Amino acid sequence: MSITFHYLSGSPFSWKVWLALEHKELSYTLNVLKADAGDLKQSQYLAINPHGKAPALEVDGFSLYESSVIIEFLEDSFPNHGLALWPHDPRRKAIARRLAAEVDAYLYPPVRCCVEQLLLSKESPSNGTEITQARQAISSSLALFDGALVAPFLMGTQATAADFALYPMTSMLTRLDLHHPAHGFAALMSERLKQWRSQVEALPFFRHTEPPHWRTSTV
Amino acid sequence: MSITFHYLSGSPFSWKVWLALEHKELSYTLNVLKADAGDLKQSQYLAINPHGKAPALEVDGFSLYESSVIIEFLEDSFPNHGLALWPHDPRRKAIARRLAAEVDAYLYPPVRCCVEQLLLSKESPSNGTEITQARQAISSSLALFDGALVAPFLMGTQATAADFALYPMTSMLTRLDLHHPAHGFAALMSERLKQWRSQVEALPFFRHTEPPHWRTSTV
Repeated sequence: MSITFHYLSGSPFSWKVWLALEHKELSYTLNVLKADAGDLKQSQYLAINPHGKAPALEVDGFSLYESSVIIEFLEDSFPNHGLALWPHDPRRKAIARRLAAEVDAYLYPPVRCCVEQLLLSKESPSNGTEITQARQAISSSLALFDGALVAPFLMGTQATAADFALYPMTSMLTRLDLHHPAHGFAALMSERLKQWRSQVEALPFFRHTEPPHWRTSTV
Repeated sequence: MSITFHYLSGSPFSWKVWLALEHKELSYTLNVLKADAGDLKQSQYLAINPHGKAPALEVDGFSLYESSVIIEFLEDSFPNHGLALWPHDPRRKAIARRLAAEVDAYLYPPVRCCVEQLLLSKESPSNGTEITQARQAISSSLALFDGALVAPFLMGTQATAADFALYPMTSMLTRLDLHHPAHGFAALMSERLKQWRSQVEALPFFRHTEPPHWRTSTV
């Protein structure tokens, strides 16, 4: 079996899948895509993901995209390999999936708005009100995750794909904070969420998955 | 076992779950929420879904929201009840889940934009360019579903949750077409997609799930 993992450094959805691959102790070839070089829009990549987005996975010639679907596929295809990505019990599994879905639906949009305006745009932020509103939406969303957190991981003693969905998104906040400390993005995280982050960071494979370009670039 | 299904008439995500409940031949109590009456924002409902959105499910006191997560929960909890919501084979299951995820990620946002501007807003559409762009995005997205369609259902001979995700969204287009024929929304669907729609409409439980308020209201 051969897995190729198409990865974009700095993409929270790519990072989620990377953490999942490591958690399941799968072997894979990492293909680091370069958005600036147009890798995502080349016909070769569009044949893998017609939306021209990362991540994507190829398993023995089978292409798959949409990070939440890749997570499910890994668990379905390799149920006894490495650690499970979801709790076994249907209700706890549903809660973990719900948390991961809430990251995508409620936390990602306002985080994306702030990243676009403050990190990716070469111009000054066009709209202070938009950032203020996004910051408020981030704060409300984090309060829900704080309330749901069982500890040490979101669902208790074992890390699940819910942790792998939330962690990269909260790292976007620390990244925003690094470059725009006046907005106080990191301060939006409660002490409990900061402790949860340190638990994820203590996973044996964690350091290996940190976005490579963060070592050399500011965005 | 007692299932209460909190439903909003006209919500494509509510309709998806309704089709899934029927496909799995589950018994449930239908609670029709009224957005105009503020039902979604009442504390009693916010205790079930803090986002104040529909659908939501209660199963013997266990509350769940996010329609894609409800779909997974129904299949996990009642694997041998009624018909399966996903193909059994992991790769075909992944494709079906990917199609359902693509409905949410790529088709819903431009459809929502058109519904807001043309059906929900009491003012004239503010921005013709926005509708033109949304129409183009809908067209591109439908082309992908047309290309993926196996027939008679998206994944072949059996209806899956991918059909239940896509169908309500295409019905938003026929609804838009009914009230704003000049935009030609229904014409965006290929003959193959129209035939696929008639297959879904021929499912024995289909008529039962049509949005009740469409019988009496224009939006």
